[in-house]
Amino acid sequence: MEAKNSFMLILLAVSAVLLFTVFTSHSSISTASSELTDCAANSGWCTAKNRILRRPTAASLSANHSSDVAGHPLDPLTLTEIAGVRDRLVSFFGGSGFSVHSLVLDEPDKDAVRRWKKGDPLPQRQAAVIARAAGKNYLLTVDLESGAVSEQDSSHVSGFPLIALEEMQAVIWAPFKNPDFNNSIIERGLDLNDVVCLPFSPGWFGDKEDGKRLVKLECFTTKDTANFYMRPIEGIIAVTDIDENEVVEFIDRGKKKHIPIPKADGTDYRLSSDNSPVFKLPNPVSMEQPNGPNFVIEGNHLVKWANWEFHLKPDPRAGVVVSQARVRDPDTGLLRNVMYKGFASELFVPYMDPEEAWYFKTYMDAGEYGFGLQALALDPLNDCPRNAVYMDAVFAASDGSPYVRSNMICIFERYAGDAAWRHTEAPIVGDMIREARPKISLVARMVASLANYDYIIDWEFHADGLIHVKVSLTGIVIVKGTSYVNTNQVNENEDVYGTLLSDNIIGVVHDHYVNFHLDMDVDGPDNSFLNVHLKRAYTDGKSPRKSYMKVEKQVAKTEKEAQIKLKLYDPSEFHVINPNKRTKVGNPVGYKIVPAGTAASLLDPEDPPQKRAAFTNNQIWVTGYNRSQQWSGGLFAYQSHGEDTLQVWSDRDGPIENRDIVLWYTLGFHHVPCQEDFPIMPTVSSGFDLKPVNFFERNPVLRVAPYDDNQLPVCKAAAASA
Amino acid sequence: MEAKNSFMLILLAVSAVLLFTVFTSHSSISTASSELTDCAANSGWCTAKNRILRRPTAASLSANHSSDVAGHPLDPLTLTEIAGVRDRLVSFFGGSGFSVHSLVLDEPDKDAVRRWKKGDPLPQRQAAVIARAAGKNYLLTVDLESGAVSEQDSSHVSGFPLIALEEMQAVIWAPFKNPDFNNSIIERGLDLNDVVCLPFSPGWFGDKEDGKRLVKLECFTTKDTANFYMRPIEGIIAVTDIDENEVVEFIDRGKKKHIPIPKADGTDYRLSSDNSPVFKLPNPVSMEQPNGPNFVIEGNHLVKWANWEFHLKPDPRAGVVVSQARVRDPDTGLLRNVMYKGFASELFVPYMDPEEAWYFKTYMDAGEYGFGLQALALDPLNDCPRNAVYMDAVFAASDGSPYVRSNMICIFERYAGDAAWRHTEAPIVGDMIREARPKISLVARMVASLANYDYIIDWEFHADGLIHVKVSLTGIVIVKGTSYVNTNQVNENEDVYGTLLSDNIIGVVHDHYVNFHLDMDVDGPDNSFLNVHLKRAYTDGKSPRKSYMKVEKQVAKTEKEAQIKLKLYDPSEFHVINPNKRTKVGNPVGYKIVPAGTAASLLDPEDPPQKRAAFTNNQIWVTGYNRSQQWSGGLFAYQSHGEDTLQVWSDRDGPIENRDIVLWYTLGFHHVPCQEDFPIMPTVSSGFDLKPVNFFERNPVLRVAPYDDNQLPVCKAAAASA
Repeated sequence: MEAKNSFMLILLAVSAVLLFTVFTSHSSISTASSELTDCAANSGWCTAKNRILRRPTAASLSANHSSDVAGHPLDPLTLTEIAGVRDRLVSFFGGSGFSVHSLVLDEPDKDAVRRWKKGDPLPQRQAAVIARAAGKNYLLTVDLESGAVSEQDSSHVSGFPLIALEEMQAVIWAPFKNPDFNNSIIERGLDLNDVVCLPFSPGWFGDKEDGKRLVKLECFTTKDTANFYMRPIEGIIAVTDIDENEVVEFIDRGKKKHIPIPKADGTDYRLSSDNSPVFKLPNPVSMEQPNGPNFVIEGNHLVKWANWEFHLKPDPRAGVVVSQARVRDPDTGLLRNVMYKGFASELFVPYMDPEEAWYFKTYMDAGEYGFGLQALALDPLNDCPRNAVYMDAVFAASDGSPYVRSNMICIFERYAGDAAWRHTEAPIVGDMIREARPKISLVARMVASLANYDYIIDWEFHADGLIHVKVSLTGIVIVKGTSYVNTNQVNENEDVYGTLLSDNIIGVVHDHYVNFHLDMDVDGPDNSFLNVHLKRAYTDGKSPRKSYMKVEKQVAKTEKEAQIKLKLYDPSEFHVINPNKRTKVGNPVGYKIVPAGTAASLLDPEDPPQKRAAFTNNQIWVTGYNRSQQWSGGLFAYQSHGEDTLQVWSDRDGPIENRDIVLWYTLGFHHVPCQEDFPIMPTVSSGFDLKPVNFFERNPVLRVAPYDDNQLPVCKAAAASA
Repeated sequence: MEAKNSFMLILLAVSAVLLFTVFTSHSSISTASSELTDCAANSGWCTAKNRILRRPTAASLSANHSSDVAGHPLDPLTLTEIAGVRDRLVSFFGGSGFSVHSLVLDEPDKDAVRRWKKGDPLPQRQAAVIARAAGKNYLLTVDLESGAVSEQDSSHVSGFPLIALEEMQAVIWAPFKNPDFNNSIIERGLDLNDVVCLPFSPGWFGDKEDGKRLVKLECFTTKDTANFYMRPIEGIIAVTDIDENEVVEFIDRGKKKHIPIPKADGTDYRLSSDNSPVFKLPNPVSMEQPNGPNFVIEGNHLVKWANWEFHLKPDPRAGVVVSQARVRDPDTGLLRNVMYKGFASELFVPYMDPEEAWYFKTYMDAGEYGFGLQALALDPLNDCPRNAVYMDAVFAASDGSPYVRSNMICIFERYAGDAAWRHTEAPIVGDMIREARPKISLVARMVASLANYDYIIDWEFHADGLIHVKVSLTGIVIVKGTSYVNTNQVNENEDVYGTLLSDNIIGVVHDHYVNFHLDMDVDGPDNSFLNVHLKRAYTDGKSPRKSYMKVEKQVAKTEKEAQIKLKLYDPSEFHVINPNKRTKVGNPVGYKIVPAGTAASLLDPEDPPQKRAAFTNNQIWVTGYNRSQQWSGGLFAYQSHGEDTLQVWSDRDGPIENRDIVLWYTLGFHHVPCQEDFPIMPTVSSGFDLKPVNFFERNPVLRVAPYDDNQLPVCKAAAASA
């Protein structure tokens, strides 16, 4: 019994890979993990073999959030509000036989939010809940005042809500109850104690994935490395029913192929695993702001910095939501609307290997796992600079009870040594002219760690009115075991679907797409989408010049006209304008989206993964605002069939001229792994800009002061430096 | 006489717009400006009306460079060496009747440079000189030891060398000798004292530009603003013969069209012109490194930082030249070659207005004006961060004499608050894993101010082996006068070729292209160009998945195969590999070029400007190394016909497999001006990466240390802050 308990503890500790520090006193963790909770509750630590599982302290669980009160219509549900909703859900479902997959503020109607002013009473507070009970999806609205629960029908939409953390925690046990699985592991000479399995969403490819909520478990050995991702037990898949917690199909292809487990040497990336020299520059360079930041965060979420003001909140699915971004016009002193709401709506990460253990790996991470749920506490000196401040999240566990995710977002001012503008003129009028202004921006950052990969999302606000959204990829590339140790062993006609990164390790080719929902509100809700087309024109002999580039502007009338594939040789600028407001000289005020580093999906449009992630069919889309169209891969993305996507909404071809419209942008990366990605990947970034275009009458940073030596911080080297 | 002298002084002061602080004791400034030199020599100041012309002090003229000695085969010519070459040129030409258009080190053969080691004697020092005398271009080599001058025939190449600063200074006077010009100015009610003319290169459109060296002068009024660019006297063009210093054609179209001079209000951008509030964040954020940099600059030009080593020098034509960039392999400790030479080879800035005063504006700034000659001293706190160090240039004036351009390049380490890599893992093995490493890079920067526009060029070296080259545009948009003050006055069918930016000001649509010469040497001179093509593949029913993205690799055999137009829907990665060297697991070592923010020229390929700047026909090119192929728009770009360009060399279709090859990359920007660009333009940036791809055995920054609070600088706010 003692031995069994010990074994359970080890497995429980292993399962924590999917727990991500989410433990709460209200937790509805199922049988398998209740011991872990007890253990943790008793000691603060669970020790099993060489593993130590640290439980968050009570302080970080509620860290001053018990007394939080919503002060803005868009403020997320507080700890108290979530607990209240949970009570209502217990009543509604007649007990605790339900699981919560999303429990967030049901945002008030945009008009109510727009009308609201500081000091006004908040619009009615409601919670939007996605729950499951008795095998059915529930879409509920809970009124926080009256406690009324109303249900919306969602039976017409395929798929399931995201898999809850506690479900992942439970389901990864299932293989260990399966004798075939245990035999497969043991036959490979592995110790079951070293084995950890990860829950991969199965995608949807037809009948096989219908009716049941499934997960495909693949396993790794943690022996001798923290980087178990580099030690896959290739070819084993335990297809498991999440609701039943039972393996429904066990596949072992790797054994037959004699695919060895890659070695642990050189895979660990932790400083504490130090076994080779550490490179260190003796004189650190640091971003310093000794008097503290120039921004304030009013009532926990309203950020005010320089000429910007916006509402910032964590979201379990989107990660970070930026709302009511407004910029002050230097001419009038007035705050002007730019964007009502911006967030990462869905991701798509298809791996390019059609073989059994890999074909289904076509993740939609926001809808399948929760981009925000996987965003963990940031490292205060290495994820963000020293001058950063942090924002916590309050999320709901799968039993509906609230917990705190500390330091999920950091906010900091950045000076990276660049100029906001500059010009040198020869000495002609008065002194020689050399004018330059430092570029200072405000960054709001979160990092989602989706098991192996880390996605860094930056919203960067510039004083010149520009919003830069940057997605950076780092973390660990998921790899495939192989018998090869050198490319010269690979037959010329064989496709290994990737790059040999190290002995017995292939980094499989894949893509990353992040689709952003950008509900623009350029000086008000009614906007149009203007295609500023650049095309070759001929002078027909009227000039010594044969040709030039001509601008032709066209407003998109309907959604289909705004399905944009970028073309290098037939380019356009894409503006969201307010056709009802013009500058003094008559240009419609606007913001343009400036794409960069794009990639387009090469999958067949009718391939199931591509249909489900059809938001990658275009780089830019514009739809009429529809409250229900938030998630570009579908509300229930898990095992969805692709009938509730941005493509489907846009194909309805509704009117978008001079209306409340939403811009969508799909950022993409092709990733052919290379050896530099082993064992952990240097950060790569891409992003896009939302940039004012005839929004201001003139350069809004014209009157920004330059830096002056006697106003910059006074610093000396730390005694411990070098 | 007194009055006349005073008037001359004003005009001389005005001419200084083209002088860019270049005054030397050896200056061969022609008659018109000799008084300026005298005046400056006597007092250090020239005052005329409200203008003060500051002469550089003697200190900045030679600033410790008199004793410079070349210590590396690629070190630029020293002050002493240039003076010696000038003496040889005086002998060669039998007096001072010549003008120097380029006088730089004739770099030794690559083999000699590669073989050279510290302590070895330098290879033979030679100067490469481009001069003109008696209406002829001279291409000369001067041996610094023997003094021998040898001449190469260049009669087969069209065009002229860049216009020398002193020629610009002289030629801008020509219109004032022309009664028609003076009448035109006076008839507009302008004061000649307020008028400044700028020398625009005429391009080449056929017979009209043949045989003569021409410049097209356009004029502005400096009244009430330092930003005279915003006050064009539209429609006046004085076509002037540079050699004769005479107006050969005077055109005045503006008068007839009644185009007013735009107003001065709101155009000045100087802090000292303060007439509206200055925005200032009370708590400055600064990049601090109190103990100084982690790099050394050995012998003036060899930069050694972290794992990088490269030679860095100013160049009058290219701006900055990076040579012998090598990175240390963390596995072996050895320095490995990455790039033999990298620099901005040519620019192309075509304006998209076919009318008489604008059609010819199709600048090739490096070859026409000298990208380095126009790179002025940097603002030490606002162009570069506080921790920067500076490098001077020593250039030759048009009489061959040397002068010093102070602080032309800045070099600094950057920490912008980002992570080099990071990963969070759940608490599973030992403590919870949260590992992140700060991203620190080294930036070498120059800024060329080509009259109105400022180009910031950054070469950024990352510790992970990546080189990021960034081009940023700021400064002042050149504008066109118009009678319109509101877009509603413009007829629907009329094309104004731009955007109405303010009353009577149109920002004309234009492009910017910068072509980079990237002589890659990945682990040695013999490299190949590998197209890593990503294409859709079908599974033909062998997988539940219909399709995937497949990698197909192909080495380009000849130059034409490496003429690359980027395609979003038919993408490739582009690697420069060393086919003779493989990693342990057998991948060829390589670097890839990662494009971003590209634009393609939309001009007709047969349009003369496009033929001359044909390097914009493709984004990527690869040519076999040829010592004479440095300038992608031609050696003599001024009024060139386009027969000596990258397109022509590449069309010869020479072999490029397993050879010494040069990669060329063309970065592009379309610029449809907007009101935010008025009166000075917020910086916009684009760039590309050279990134190791299977060059290292693993992530080369794996063992970099994280930041530790007690090692970062200790700072307090300045007393003068806020």
